[in-house]
Amino acid sequence: MIEDKNQQRTQLSQVGEISLIEHLTQGFAIENESTIKGTGDDGAVLQFENEKVVVSTDMMVEGVHFDLSFMPLKHLGYKAIVNAISDLAAMNATPTQVLLSVAVSNRFPVEALDELFDGFKTAAKVYKLDVVGGDTTSSNKGLIISVTAIGKANEEDITYRVGAGINDLIVVTGDIGAAYMGLQVLDREKQVFLVNPNNQPDLEPYSYLVERQLKPEARTDIKELLEKMEVKPTSMIDITDGLASEVMHLCKQANLGCNIYEDKLPLDPQLINVCEEFNINSTTVALNGGEDFELLFTVKMEDFDKVKHNPHLSIIGHMTDVNSGTNLVTRGNNIIGLKARGWEPENNDEDAQVVL
Amino acid sequence: MIEDKNQQRTQLSQVGEISLIEHLTQGFAIENESTIKGTGDDGAVLQFENEKVVVSTDMMVEGVHFDLSFMPLKHLGYKAIVNAISDLAAMNATPTQVLLSVAVSNRFPVEALDELFDGFKTAAKVYKLDVVGGDTTSSNKGLIISVTAIGKANEEDITYRVGAGINDLIVVTGDIGAAYMGLQVLDREKQVFLVNPNNQPDLEPYSYLVERQLKPEARTDIKELLEKMEVKPTSMIDITDGLASEVMHLCKQANLGCNIYEDKLPLDPQLINVCEEFNINSTTVALNGGEDFELLFTVKMEDFDKVKHNPHLSIIGHMTDVNSGTNLVTRGNNIIGLKARGWEPENNDEDAQVVL
Repeated sequence: MIEDKNQQRTQLSQVGEISLIEHLTQGFAIENESTIKGTGDDGAVLQFENEKVVVSTDMMVEGVHFDLSFMPLKHLGYKAIVNAISDLAAMNATPTQVLLSVAVSNRFPVEALDELFDGFKTAAKVYKLDVVGGDTTSSNKGLIISVTAIGKANEEDITYRVGAGINDLIVVTGDIGAAYMGLQVLDREKQVFLVNPNNQPDLEPYSYLVERQLKPEARTDIKELLEKMEVKPTSMIDITDGLASEVMHLCKQANLGCNIYEDKLPLDPQLINVCEEFNINSTTVALNGGEDFELLFTVKMEDFDKVKHNPHLSIIGHMTDVNSGTNLVTRGNNIIGLKARGWEPENNDEDAQVVL
Repeated sequence: MIEDKNQQRTQLSQVGEISLIEHLTQGFAIENESTIKGTGDDGAVLQFENEKVVVSTDMMVEGVHFDLSFMPLKHLGYKAIVNAISDLAAMNATPTQVLLSVAVSNRFPVEALDELFDGFKTAAKVYKLDVVGGDTTSSNKGLIISVTAIGKANEEDITYRVGAGINDLIVVTGDIGAAYMGLQVLDREKQVFLVNPNNQPDLEPYSYLVERQLKPEARTDIKELLEKMEVKPTSMIDITDGLASEVMHLCKQANLGCNIYEDKLPLDPQLINVCEEFNINSTTVALNGGEDFELLFTVKMEDFDKVKHNPHLSIIGHMTDVNSGTNLVTRGNNIIGLKARGWEPENNDEDAQVVL
């Protein structure tokens, strides 16, 4: 519905390999001191003298992770980088370089790749990343994007999934669930559009939710915030599969349980309104909706005063002993067990993205 | 023709995300001191104190880069890693870590992924690589593999594509053209098989060529050889698109020309025999056949004595001034201009793999 059918179309076969690459990589500047040599050779050369190197990789497949009928390619490029560097933010590392690989079928003209690379460029600029390599190839079907993110951190700053202690506070950044509801809104509008292509959707009442789905941000700002607050998380993870799943990850790694308080979950007012409109329980969305790219972490109890009134942070619960289980304490003070979404047998293939 | 139709088939949906990942990554040991934390967190943590980090990434797509009707999955996993680390060998760096991403359609059972990961494991063991991350996801069609290779090198040892001087000697490792002819042999046998599925191909006369196509090796041994010989190449590249294309790359980067001597091209006797059988000119194959994963480099003229009798190395020509052009000097002493293959308009999509 966003696609312009009259756009200029230059077939990939009309341009040569070298000129395509030169074309696509125009405007990628090198900004980080750690980049000695970027693209243009067999490999990139980087230096991290006194810091550790943190790396992560993610693959996104058309029809599985994104739907081009409502995801503009520029946003997709931006989101692919956000998706990859969010993992580094979750290690409390600073992303510095990315490698971008794209497999694309010949249904995409050069102008489409331009849009995608514009999104890459924008994200690289916003997050001060150097694009130091990649691969562009043809695919038999659809678009596949693989992003490897490289970053740096002092050893003492790195946070792992393992490390939470009993009674540690559980903290989440920003608000959660909006990206999932944004997807529900876009999917509903797509169905309307399929029935009546002349219908122009009014997305204004859903602007925040849609933006969270189409143009999420990685919380690379949290590392600096924590430094200023002089707080070092005892464990950390990013929220891609949903809060419940990630909380259970931290608990499993620490061999602990937890209590999460329903009334502490940070929900945007628009999320609450739209959940009512869709007749969906907003707590369920907050617990299970993925792709928020917020960070979830634990801090020691004595850091409570440092954390409690920060507008970026919400204390949503605390760690308990393992025998107490992983629980949600409802507004009505009922205790119910958390359940994780994920690529388990009862789910469909759309949940198949996993971290090795 | 290699596929066993009666193999055990466990649907991907029968196993959960976590257990699949645990299953696939069994037997991946951490061997390098530079790996502080491998898989299992949001990112891997590495350290390279006094050495530079060299990174490269490659994507391989079913139907574009490989044909599963004659490429066993175990070999494919091995080759995908060889393909990625060959770029680091071409930088004169030592590969130490890889990140492996796989998108796979549900036509592949778990046993197929096992085979693929067996190939990854074998390559990781042979080349002393730590698998420190990756992503496993579903695809709508076929198999896509993305490998990011990370390595290390002292700054003074790193070789770039740029750097050759006039009169420098042009050197190639091993022999060339065999991987391409191996593909021709396999493709011919596939056509025979399609006509008569009961036909059992006799690949014995083609064993070396087929092995070069299905199980190539990366020349990570050359770095040590060069150190022992006390030779530092002035420029270097790996041979993936064909010798002519790579020679022209080095010439363009140095703004120089070259003479390559037909009678100096290192050809395996089996290649020569099979080229006769196929009625193909072996020099054309040597110049244009890709995927040899040998290294091409230049050394200063004064290193001639160090290089000349080494069984791993062949001096095939020398750099000239740019106005002389990039030439092949034939056995009959004719001079003809080199032509590069590549993803230029006259070629098909199979050549679409390019380096950013």
